[in-house]
Amino acid sequence: MLLDFYGELLTDKQRECFDLHYNDDLSLSEIAEQSGISRQGVWDNIRRAESALREFEEKTGLVRRFAETEVALERLRGIISRMSMIENDSVRQLAGEAQRELDALGIRGLSDGI
Amino acid sequence: MLLDFYGELLTDKQRECFDLHYNDDLSLSEIAEQSGISRQGVWDNIRRAESALREFEEKTGLVRRFAETEVALERLRGIISRMSMIENDSVRQLAGEAQRELDALGIRGLSDGI
Repeated sequence: MLLDFYGELLTDKQRECFDLHYNDDLSLSEIAEQSGISRQGVWDNIRRAESALREFEEKTGLVRRFAETEVALERLRGIISRMSMIENDSVRQLAGEAQRELDALGIRGLSDGI
Repeated sequence: MLLDFYGELLTDKQRECFDLHYNDDLSLSEIAEQSGISRQGVWDNIRRAESALREFEEKTGLVRRFAETEVALERLRGIISRMSMIENDSVRQLAGEAQRELDALGIRGLSDGI
């Protein structure tokens, strides 16, 4: 999630090494071979990327803010879902509208289980 | 809003000069006097702050993402408000819960006009 938010603030090499290591689960040697830099260079890029990502989050707290919003939206989704079960056409229509708004927000998990 | 999101990524001087100029509406000379740097130094700090803030947003798009969420939440608020006018105790109770969730998100404008 940190990479999703702040990845573009890293250098290309930092982002590439970090992504291959943590998301594609490649070893330092495999990344070194693939990217044409030394194993030590790969390690330095990953360490610097980690440190930069942590610093961006410590300074801005934006991932935390997004995560808090997401939790509240999940609760809202639960409330809307309970409303949609009430036997009343107006309520169901409005609950449908609300669900579409929540879906459009594209929050992870929101498309499950409707 | 850019300063609110990315302000901590600027240097102290950049943030201070930018804030005094745009939020407190001080002139370059007034800021120079207050902060003990030259008028040219103030100008440089403001220009670099602007450029850095713009670059953070171009690379991450986080302010845009937050703003889009905010618009969707305003629409949700409208829908919940219409639900709360339906004469049905269960609906009203659930609408109240949903409103409290929206309020807790602390989105600007959400506390107006309930």
